[in-house]
Amino acid sequence: MFEKVLIANRGEIALRILRACHEMGIQTVAVHSTADAEAKHVRLADEAVCIGPPSAADSYLNIANIIAAAEVSGADAIHPGYGFLSENAKFADIVEAHNIAFIGPSPEHIRVMGDKVQAKKTAGAVGLPLVPGSEGAVSDLEEAETIAFEIGYPVLVKAASGGGGRGMKVVERPEDLSRSLSQAKSEAKAAFGDDTVYIEKYLGNPRHIEFQIFGDGQGGAVHLGERDCSLQRRHQKVLEEAPSPALSADERDRMGEVCRQAIADLKYRGAGTIEFLYEDGNFYFIEMNTRLQVEHPVTEMITGLDLVREQIRVAAGLPMSVTQADVRLSGHAIECRINAEDPRTFAPSPGLVEQYHVPGGLGVRVDSALYDGYRIPPYYDSLISKLIVYGATREECIMRLRRSLREYVIEGPKTTIPLHQALIEEPDIQNGDYSIKWLEAWLAAQD
Amino acid sequence: MFEKVLIANRGEIALRILRACHEMGIQTVAVHSTADAEAKHVRLADEAVCIGPPSAADSYLNIANIIAAAEVSGADAIHPGYGFLSENAKFADIVEAHNIAFIGPSPEHIRVMGDKVQAKKTAGAVGLPLVPGSEGAVSDLEEAETIAFEIGYPVLVKAASGGGGRGMKVVERPEDLSRSLSQAKSEAKAAFGDDTVYIEKYLGNPRHIEFQIFGDGQGGAVHLGERDCSLQRRHQKVLEEAPSPALSADERDRMGEVCRQAIADLKYRGAGTIEFLYEDGNFYFIEMNTRLQVEHPVTEMITGLDLVREQIRVAAGLPMSVTQADVRLSGHAIECRINAEDPRTFAPSPGLVEQYHVPGGLGVRVDSALYDGYRIPPYYDSLISKLIVYGATREECIMRLRRSLREYVIEGPKTTIPLHQALIEEPDIQNGDYSIKWLEAWLAAQD
Repeated sequence: MFEKVLIANRGEIALRILRACHEMGIQTVAVHSTADAEAKHVRLADEAVCIGPPSAADSYLNIANIIAAAEVSGADAIHPGYGFLSENAKFADIVEAHNIAFIGPSPEHIRVMGDKVQAKKTAGAVGLPLVPGSEGAVSDLEEAETIAFEIGYPVLVKAASGGGGRGMKVVERPEDLSRSLSQAKSEAKAAFGDDTVYIEKYLGNPRHIEFQIFGDGQGGAVHLGERDCSLQRRHQKVLEEAPSPALSADERDRMGEVCRQAIADLKYRGAGTIEFLYEDGNFYFIEMNTRLQVEHPVTEMITGLDLVREQIRVAAGLPMSVTQADVRLSGHAIECRINAEDPRTFAPSPGLVEQYHVPGGLGVRVDSALYDGYRIPPYYDSLISKLIVYGATREECIMRLRRSLREYVIEGPKTTIPLHQALIEEPDIQNGDYSIKWLEAWLAAQD
Repeated sequence: MFEKVLIANRGEIALRILRACHEMGIQTVAVHSTADAEAKHVRLADEAVCIGPPSAADSYLNIANIIAAAEVSGADAIHPGYGFLSENAKFADIVEAHNIAFIGPSPEHIRVMGDKVQAKKTAGAVGLPLVPGSEGAVSDLEEAETIAFEIGYPVLVKAASGGGGRGMKVVERPEDLSRSLSQAKSEAKAAFGDDTVYIEKYLGNPRHIEFQIFGDGQGGAVHLGERDCSLQRRHQKVLEEAPSPALSADERDRMGEVCRQAIADLKYRGAGTIEFLYEDGNFYFIEMNTRLQVEHPVTEMITGLDLVREQIRVAAGLPMSVTQADVRLSGHAIECRINAEDPRTFAPSPGLVEQYHVPGGLGVRVDSALYDGYRIPPYYDSLISKLIVYGATREECIMRLRRSLREYVIEGPKTTIPLHQALIEEPDIQNGDYSIKWLEAWLAAQD
């Protein structure tokens, strides 16, 4: 096992990783920008090294300084957390070239999954369901009709060179295909000088459902069920839950097994997340994240597994602590991402935390690096706390979440606590009846 | 269901009860002494009523003022917490006489179990195992030998009028009985003017093991397994865990069922705890507590049940939310009682909390009413926080506890955190190998 792990991150995730290390008896090295000298992860680590000025580009993204910090402190492994360098294949290469273990997948897997085209190709090759469509340009109406018939209406006609919705048409019925195809082609020609179009399945109101997977790098793999992360604003997740209120146990088992097998075939190492759009009982691969997710705690709450510990074990060449047969999903967990932002305008609100009281009691977990008197710097992501609540049922979980949000005091900066309080009173949320479009529509209706 | 519950207590347990009420959608009324006007339970309750000056006798034990507060606020139930009026049968009588529900057992059960002689008699009648011995005075050596033979050596010869160890002899072997009996009789005669003695089983090195039970008042009952509370200083519990490292699953099931049946036979209502000494595979009833225990959270952690919610349900005439068949014990939980005391001398250390950071993350629960800037008053019990940690195994639980204790910052008052840190490094504690005598011996050896 590693003796000393350098944590190449900040904020709540640095603290999260530090906790797992300390529980395993591993020493920790914090790194920090000059703006983070007083941060909680710095205070709680065994050692701390300053790696640069406030700008992330010069500190948390500064590969040379991070490697130097690892060498100076004698760290034998680096955990990248999420964001920053966590999906940078070059960083993983460099770490390994310095004989330091990278707590994450192989650089090759990071590289493949970081490239949209390669990722889809690989996903398809290992049996993950893709959005069905023409595998390239559609040349004429007859071909278009054949493909649209095969994949089923509604379909989307998309300009190959397109972007921003131009040259894009939703076709609801066969009789509209001819006209939409012509329109898309002429729009595409006008906008991009290229009238090449292709066709794919149109998803009108999908959910975002992702499976947490884990591989040992030798072909051993488990899935830990799914998370529903459909509540998003501008592609940023706001509230996540596990299990998804939309999936049946059969769907979970079936898709979980598809993911597990894919990961086994890839000989993937460490934690990963396979993201899907989900509509009408079907899953469509979007991408795979080759790192720990912000929302991993909801999976921890319903499995009892410490995912960071599992990452460290696998990176050290140990087997995972469970096999698929040992994995038990029980109860329900919801995570609220609490940001230092105005809950109406979403404008960042950094600054001094004047009072800080965390909720406690049964089933309540807070992952946060805040403390009374801490000054939230303006340079980084506005996520300041994750409130994760567990209940035996989804209903109990929501009751407890309501109580916990009421009890959570963060004075000084504005936070998104009031947003979460409003969300959980919405019947659609209480009923689990929401898609990836729900939150933006709801926000628009509040104005 | 109740609309408004008055919480006749303070500190962490008032907050604990408030949390359960708020999760159930019940309004809360806090009561407080003038010393507690800034307390967290007062701040978080829907309403608060001052019930007297700092002295507990004039406030938290002031029945007239508490009843008046309930009437003024329109509370339809009172939860007494633990300590204070929680086992005062007269208080329960008065509450019910005012048509307010008492969230606890019937006054009659409180009364019976509050009287040592009646409690033992009742316990024996419902099948709970008592410490075996002569059922009264032993008149001569022959009778003493017969009884001692029946219950097995070692035995204890005790003065009927005795106390403080005088007129008390431990007899290890049959050949010593005659001499010890004479000595005990003459010591008793000299000390108390009465040479009546009796004989009971001597427990040299027992553990304190208690079963959490619950009754619906109609003869329905469940047990929720046991807690091991052997780590005590001056009869005060210091650290509790569930399950006990000493019990086999068979012993747990067998004794749990004996307790469940006893509670069913008593038609007991609400939460209760049956305390035993345990030695060499045998249980010996000590007493029954007719209230919530300080250490109830360890049971909550391994069952997932909210015991305060269950208390409220039963008091409102609803069934418990589980039957015995639904109860699943899983994993391991340990609670550290953190007192505002010097960890070496145990002298109270009230005063200003200058910095307060609670540990967080997976499996960590903090039940505390502390906050940054709070001034711990000198008038009440020194318990300021309960750190409760859960792990899938006892080993994981201890690893996590070590990490959490390290992360817990309470600056200002001295606390017993360093005591707990030292305890969990002891091989006997790590191995679960300790009796009710362990802690006092260990403390004596530290000097």
